[in-house]
Amino acid sequence: MIGIEDVRAAAGRIAGVAHRTPVLTSRTVDALAGASVLAKAECFQRGGAFKFRGAYNAIASLSPETRAAGVLAYSSGNHAQAIALAARLHGIPAVIVMPYDAPPTKAAATAGYGAELVRYDRYDQVREDVGRELASERGLTLIPPYDHPDVIAGQGTVALELVEDCGPLDVLVVCVGGGGLLAGCATAATAVSPGVRVVGVEPAAGDDVRQSLAAGHRVTIPVPRTVADGQQTTSPGELNFPIIQRLVEDVVTVTDEEIVATMVLAFERMKVVLEPSGASALAAVLTGRVPGIAGRRVGVTLSGGNVGAARFAELVGAHPPPAG
Amino acid sequence: MIGIEDVRAAAGRIAGVAHRTPVLTSRTVDALAGASVLAKAECFQRGGAFKFRGAYNAIASLSPETRAAGVLAYSSGNHAQAIALAARLHGIPAVIVMPYDAPPTKAAATAGYGAELVRYDRYDQVREDVGRELASERGLTLIPPYDHPDVIAGQGTVALELVEDCGPLDVLVVCVGGGGLLAGCATAATAVSPGVRVVGVEPAAGDDVRQSLAAGHRVTIPVPRTVADGQQTTSPGELNFPIIQRLVEDVVTVTDEEIVATMVLAFERMKVVLEPSGASALAAVLTGRVPGIAGRRVGVTLSGGNVGAARFAELVGAHPPPAG
Repeated sequence: MIGIEDVRAAAGRIAGVAHRTPVLTSRTVDALAGASVLAKAECFQRGGAFKFRGAYNAIASLSPETRAAGVLAYSSGNHAQAIALAARLHGIPAVIVMPYDAPPTKAAATAGYGAELVRYDRYDQVREDVGRELASERGLTLIPPYDHPDVIAGQGTVALELVEDCGPLDVLVVCVGGGGLLAGCATAATAVSPGVRVVGVEPAAGDDVRQSLAAGHRVTIPVPRTVADGQQTTSPGELNFPIIQRLVEDVVTVTDEEIVATMVLAFERMKVVLEPSGASALAAVLTGRVPGIAGRRVGVTLSGGNVGAARFAELVGAHPPPAG
Repeated sequence: MIGIEDVRAAAGRIAGVAHRTPVLTSRTVDALAGASVLAKAECFQRGGAFKFRGAYNAIASLSPETRAAGVLAYSSGNHAQAIALAARLHGIPAVIVMPYDAPPTKAAATAGYGAELVRYDRYDQVREDVGRELASERGLTLIPPYDHPDVIAGQGTVALELVEDCGPLDVLVVCVGGGGLLAGCATAATAVSPGVRVVGVEPAAGDDVRQSLAAGHRVTIPVPRTVADGQQTTSPGELNFPIIQRLVEDVVTVTDEEIVATMVLAFERMKVVLEPSGASALAAVLTGRVPGIAGRRVGVTLSGGNVGAARFAELVGAHPPPAG
């Protein structure tokens, strides 16, 4: 378990390195949601997503000797970029284990940060096995994408900043893959905004966290096929799940079509770029999937913006917005 | 002629109504430009473009009786939305004369603000004639998109805010259609950042301002065919041109391909949505068209973000970015 003191310590470590991202508001979004929506724009974070917070905090928390040997990460993309960038800022080597079908922009950006890429087949190999083997061979420290206390604490700074900058929230809506952002934000938000209701959002095709909460234990599902590549996880993290059980009221789902429609709305009305996973929390708010938000102050994570223009064009073509 | 006092008065009128837009910075952009680029993000302005500043200032400057009768504007899009919104905020009627081939998102947004739309054929009819006739018939005050001192003064607040927020600039690069933004920003920037070099940017297919500066008088060209629909003007404004002659060092041009590539870069690396006209100034900086910027502090206008997702997809498809 982590506490607000761990999130505050993380905030100290990332201060002046991570961006304190802006909180966006939109009259259009408020009118559609029937609520006052405060959107924490992690698409403007370094590396293009919230992941930099946890990655930097985890690397900064290592002992100098351990850190110097280098780090390893397995990731569908944004955690990889975050580890690559955080490692470069620390002047240490990074090896990234990434699926062959990761978005090309994410792979290119990761390599651009100077990391070594090792590819694997996400439908055939278990990335944890690939990662552990490499780490032990080379003496690297494995930094998992969500199942790690320093990663969770780092991600919690998203909610800490949101409440510090905007005041208490009635509801906080957070996208969830493995649960790093959700567990961290739930820890921070419930501490600094007492009484806040925290709700997670998953793609409908990959609702492992919702199923796990219903079952009362961690459920593992097949790799979900969804446009939300950052949420293609198969089960909540071992450390993350009990935090989510304790602090999160509910997990709701949105369809791929709703996610793409929200990407289009963010593009046309807010003028910001969201990747599919980054749009899911806002999609849940706009489609009425989060109960009890009418007239409330609702925090929403816009968790990332790493989508190529060509991929965006493809998604918009496949799911055209309504005419007019 | 207008002076800095007019721009400061405009700043007072729009305070608390227009957004004080953020200044964006990007390590990627700085590295590509070889300069410190300070990008004034008017895509986040109300109505999606800088035009709201001039429109609101012009309407706020009318006498109460004149204002109450309503206003009329002719515009390819963003000025229309701006007038419609500013009129609604003042509680007065607005009639917008808009070409049939204006982008559908712009027409829809204008109508959404409650304005009455009157369409015309931009390749066949002179919009000034259509506008003047309607204005005299209905007793409306015509607010032209750029050739008006209050509009110019309002647009100048873009540069005033940029210098107030970031300090003196070495160079200011501004997109130019009819010259409202360029004349206003040149007036403000040269007053509050003495010694700044102001450079305008036009699409290569529509370089009427560049030709006019070279000729020493206003040159009129056929309606240019360019993706930059906000810069499809045929000559600089009568009031605007002498200001530009006096205060602007040079006007450079960028191709449609360079504009689209810059829209893609802004999308993928800055996570912001720029319409073609809104990307032209940044395109000039990134393609080396603005001389003498190496190592300098360079202000750039990102003048608007009103492009539909479908149109963006179409542009990206027509001008695919380089692989990798």
